[in-house]
Amino acid sequence: MGTNREVNLETIKEAACTLSGHVIETPIQTCETLDLLAGRRLFFKCENFQRSGSFKFRGAFNAVSRLVSSNPNEPIKRQLHVVGCSSGNYACGLALAAKHHGVTAHVIMPNNCPECKKQTVLSYGANLLQREQKDFIPARKQVEDLTGAVFISSSQHPDVISGQGTMGLELLQQVPDLDAVIMPVGGGGMLAGVSMVIKSICPEVRVYGAEPEVANQAALSLQTGERRAFSHFPRSIADGLVCGIGEVTWAYIRDNVDDIFTVSEDEIKNAMRLVWERMKLVVEPSGVVGVAAVLCDSFKARAGGCKNVAVILSGGNVDLQKLPEILKM
Amino acid sequence: MGTNREVNLETIKEAACTLSGHVIETPIQTCETLDLLAGRRLFFKCENFQRSGSFKFRGAFNAVSRLVSSNPNEPIKRQLHVVGCSSGNYACGLALAAKHHGVTAHVIMPNNCPECKKQTVLSYGANLLQREQKDFIPARKQVEDLTGAVFISSSQHPDVISGQGTMGLELLQQVPDLDAVIMPVGGGGMLAGVSMVIKSICPEVRVYGAEPEVANQAALSLQTGERRAFSHFPRSIADGLVCGIGEVTWAYIRDNVDDIFTVSEDEIKNAMRLVWERMKLVVEPSGVVGVAAVLCDSFKARAGGCKNVAVILSGGNVDLQKLPEILKM
Repeated sequence: MGTNREVNLETIKEAACTLSGHVIETPIQTCETLDLLAGRRLFFKCENFQRSGSFKFRGAFNAVSRLVSSNPNEPIKRQLHVVGCSSGNYACGLALAAKHHGVTAHVIMPNNCPECKKQTVLSYGANLLQREQKDFIPARKQVEDLTGAVFISSSQHPDVISGQGTMGLELLQQVPDLDAVIMPVGGGGMLAGVSMVIKSICPEVRVYGAEPEVANQAALSLQTGERRAFSHFPRSIADGLVCGIGEVTWAYIRDNVDDIFTVSEDEIKNAMRLVWERMKLVVEPSGVVGVAAVLCDSFKARAGGCKNVAVILSGGNVDLQKLPEILKM
Repeated sequence: MGTNREVNLETIKEAACTLSGHVIETPIQTCETLDLLAGRRLFFKCENFQRSGSFKFRGAFNAVSRLVSSNPNEPIKRQLHVVGCSSGNYACGLALAAKHHGVTAHVIMPNNCPECKKQTVLSYGANLLQREQKDFIPARKQVEDLTGAVFISSSQHPDVISGQGTMGLELLQQVPDLDAVIMPVGGGGMLAGVSMVIKSICPEVRVYGAEPEVANQAALSLQTGERRAFSHFPRSIADGLVCGIGEVTWAYIRDNVDDIFTVSEDEIKNAMRLVWERMKLVVEPSGVVGVAAVLCDSFKARAGGCKNVAVILSGGNVDLQKLPEILKM
């Protein structure tokens, strides 16, 4: 299945062809109030409008599509199964991509994942297994043994990374005179894919990641030049970003990313309130971490010259019931 | 000030020129899930993205702009004052329009108006007066006496109606093969303006209003052919729609509107949940009443042949804190 396949501009352009007509070329929105607060022009890439509610659908669709087309025609055509582990958004994306291709999806999610992500996964007909995060790998092995399911990593599979990279191609078309791009980093699939596109086509455009202070492994890795893994699973309202970057994505991030900013939980809440109240967009906590970053002092200090900055709003799957709790400071 | 001025296609086209470069030509969004539920293609006009958070900015800007340009050059240039009464969105729109033109705005809002609308009005520098709804008229007279303020009705002033009508011009450009348009009706300014455009240019396109069951004066008026006023102020989560249609708008609505649908409070809540969760858009309860209508059985019965329906999402000013309470069924 070519899980060691390299990710480069070609694989990402191939992914764009595969995704064409199936993913939404999400729009760019702007906001005067946020421009004023940031002291620069911001261009928000609305992946909260993406199918399944987040950018994760891109990578999942590309990987499942390639898996299906590479599957040899056996005399007796067996049902294909895939399995993935996810805090939620990738589970939604994989479930929808599998449904589209007539593939059975098994998704392993944490016990405390948002209810809406659970409901979305179930509505797409996937088999949902809820487990403690530390028990993900044994659960996955069980599924593989029982069903012959193919594991597709939510961030480390090269076809997933190439799928996420397609956002970079769109950004370069959509935003004039782009100086920088910033996006959340969890496992690093989006950052690896998008930075590959940007540095291949416009190396002068800066590529930044953003992550919660309490889960700052990507920032530490980039500072020290050595990948840091989590020794524990931290708690953040940005539930999608509490997994560390993996080995595959680390190699691309190390080579292509200029800087990674960390933001406090309060900064994430403040960004979320601004995006909901001023931009009228439903974006989940993990999805606004890039917004929190462009508003923080360290961004002003370290990214001073960037006039036009694209900010990826990565997803919009959030429990409305929990909103007051999430926004409490 | 020409408050008896007729509203027609020409006055609306003039308004479009006045507004050009100052209002956002709000985008159209679509949603597969809602298309399936409605059994037709829906085109959502996102006035929640409009400046000041609702369509009300259009009418307010047009009226203030015309007031300023008609103001004679006196030897001593006096400060212009305007006054308006509003459940909230028109107050925000009038405050921002006045600020743009260097005019002082006084806005009278109910005691129980959403906090976010109050904060927005204050942030635009308007003078806010909170009163019981029954005391609006005496409060307005006081302001007029004290400051010489010009009263601009939130829905009955012809320049306001012409401003709202500009949405109709945009819709005809943005939506291909339009069969019908549906929008919330409170005072009736939007419905009067948009229906004037649609029936002047494409009389075969049907124009529908939507309102809460508990505040169904527009539907009753259209059924009986006689304008019904409120004998009391009903309570609805659609706080922007509990004022009756006025004399001016009634004449246009009577002539140009095909039907008005009423929806229950639960139908409004359900529509709001769908728009937030599936479309990832922050829209206030009053703003989703058209969505609730296209999903209801009576719409399916009475608007059967309409394949492509534009739905105006009129505003997005909602207190996030109150969301669980608003959505409780």
